[in-house]
Amino acid sequence: MSVRRGGEEPAAFVTGVHVYFQDTDAGGIVYHARYLDFLERCRMDWLRSLGHPVRELEARHGVLFIVHAIGIDYLRPGRLEDALRVELGLERLGGASLELRQRVTRDGEVLVSAQVRLACVDAAGLRPARIPPALRERLGTHGRTRSGMTTTTTATTCPT
Amino acid sequence: MSVRRGGEEPAAFVTGVHVYFQDTDAGGIVYHARYLDFLERCRMDWLRSLGHPVRELEARHGVLFIVHAIGIDYLRPGRLEDALRVELGLERLGGASLELRQRVTRDGEVLVSAQVRLACVDAAGLRPARIPPALRERLGTHGRTRSGMTTTTTATTCPT
Amino acid sequence: MSVRRGGEEPAAFVTGVHVYFQDTDAGGIVYHARYLDFLERCRMDWLRSLGHPVRELEARHGVLFIVHAIGIDYLRPGRLEDALRVELGLERLGGASLELRQRVTRDGEVLVSAQVRLACVDAAGLRPARIPPALRERLGTHGRTRSGMTTTTTATTCPT
Amino acid sequence: MSVRRGGEEPAAFVTGVHVYFQDTDAGGIVYHARYLDFLERCRMDWLRSLGHPVRELEARHGVLFIVHAIGIDYLRPGRLEDALRVELGLERLGGASLELRQRVTRDGEVLVSAQVRLACVDAAGLRPARIPPALRERLGTHGRTRSGMTTTTTATTCPT
Repeated sequence: MSVRRGGEEPAAFVTGVHVYFQDTDAGGIVYHARYLDFLERCRMDWLRSLGHPVRELEARHGVLFIVHAIGIDYLRPGRLEDALRVELGLERLGGASLELRQRVTRDGEVLVSAQVRLACVDAAGLRPARIPPALRERLGTHGRTRSGMTTTTTATTCPT
Repeated sequence: MSVRRGGEEPAAFVTGVHVYFQDTDAGGIVYHARYLDFLERCRMDWLRSLGHPVRELEARHGVLFIVHAIGIDYLRPGRLEDALRVELGLERLGGASLELRQRVTRDGEVLVSAQVRLACVDAAGLRPARIPPALRERLGTHGRTRSGMTTTTTATTCPT
Repeated sequence: MSVRRGGEEPAAFVTGVHVYFQDTDAGGIVYHARYLDFLERCRMDWLRSLGHPVRELEARHGVLFIVHAIGIDYLRPGRLEDALRVELGLERLGGASLELRQRVTRDGEVLVSAQVRLACVDAAGLRPARIPPALRERLGTHGRTRSGMTTTTTATTCPT
Repeated sequence: MSVRRGGEEPAAFVTGVHVYFQDTDAGGIVYHARYLDFLERCRMDWLRSLGHPVRELEARHGVLFIVHAIGIDYLRPGRLEDALRVELGLERLGGASLELRQRVTRDGEVLVSAQVRLACVDAAGLRPARIPPALRERLGTHGRTRSGMTTTTTATTCPT
């Protein structure tokens, strides 16, 4: 695999986010936990873009994705009225879990970099559940289409 | 009824709230929508103090209280590390609704004053539902005990 | 003035909002305080659309808009993955204050209706301050353009 | 160092947190980003307990602590009306940074485990700044008192 530089790698999926007062704190910058909200918006937009909004995943397939682990690095502060990009790349596709690489950028600069592990669970009991085949197929295709790889375990699209 | 002055009326129920970074915005003050969270904490603590935490209301009685209307006045800004009091008084007890007077104070000064109308609904369909008798009894007693009134339609305990 | 029906009046300004998990609560619906966030996004987008993002208002003119009062009615619950419209109409333009009519709709149905009074204050001391003339001019024009009125005290564009 | 079991180690500092509707999402559990709020409340309570509330750190010393990195594992879901404990142990005390081990428990069960790196920065420019000596002294004492260690680089008090 060739070396890739962080700022230039095309992301698999991108959502725009604007910074409002509600996203900031008295330190004058974006409140650190708010980035997890931004990351979630991107993930939900991404699933919806694949034809599987979370409401459909629950109603039709009886499953939810819940966050199992997050590692997040805060590199630069976001500010009021910033126009941010939230990016997402699929790193690993397991039977009942996903690993994503996400980051938040502003004018090409990385503000936040995150690694997110999601678990697919049954909505009723929150026990591990297989990712629905219809979504799995899209995730594989999605990785392949975007990254040029031929396996469903795609390379990260947001390397740091 | 004798005239009562706003700052000195004992409230029917009081919850303490501390102001953290998460509650503030880049204006350096408590973010305005956060007060609705503070008011909710007080209402849930109050129901729990009456022996009816909302989880029990749903599990045993199949009802939820949802907010139907709020009128809120912002009088003075809250600040980081403030120790606030959130107060609540029952103003009106209907068959399937409640009206509360709430306010947030700091060292006796009123920061926020609010009027809140709650609707009791069935948890499944969110349609109007009778307030469970066991809770209703406590609400009547609660008003009576605290305000010296003998009807369940109690006087406000947080006049402005 | 002719009678206007609520659902059909064109709003002066509209922002789209999508409902994510972060916006909901365990009742399965949009958490009531979150609508205040949605309303704020619309107001900030509106000021930015007029050429006066809040960051510029503070940096150049030394003023902030803070919320003085909100009256909000919750008519129907919002749900996960809903695509909402947040609308805004200027009702009254004072020397150091604004009154807005806002509402949140889904497919033409009103979920939430609100009346919001903003105060213009100096950013340092939070004391009342005149609305900067450059913005005032835009607000007047804005009202005039949209509602066909010739005074800066425009009619509401979101009557209930 | 002897082996320690996760659930029984006394934490250096503990804050109680109650779960309200505002903390949950439509999945019926505590919204994942909310735990970062809980962790922050514990950190701010802890600094205040040491005689250095963040407001004083900024006003007197001109510094802020900002989050540089968080790694968080979600082990069990929190629920509405849960009474949670948020614990904190100092792991490493650097010149301009701190590393903390935090976790959220319910009846002795760990719901969330986190590693948090804080940077001390000057409040004006957000550049790295030395931890104020008065606080540093308390942090050293604090670690020593609680863990029986004699250096300021204390052992974790919340091992997993």
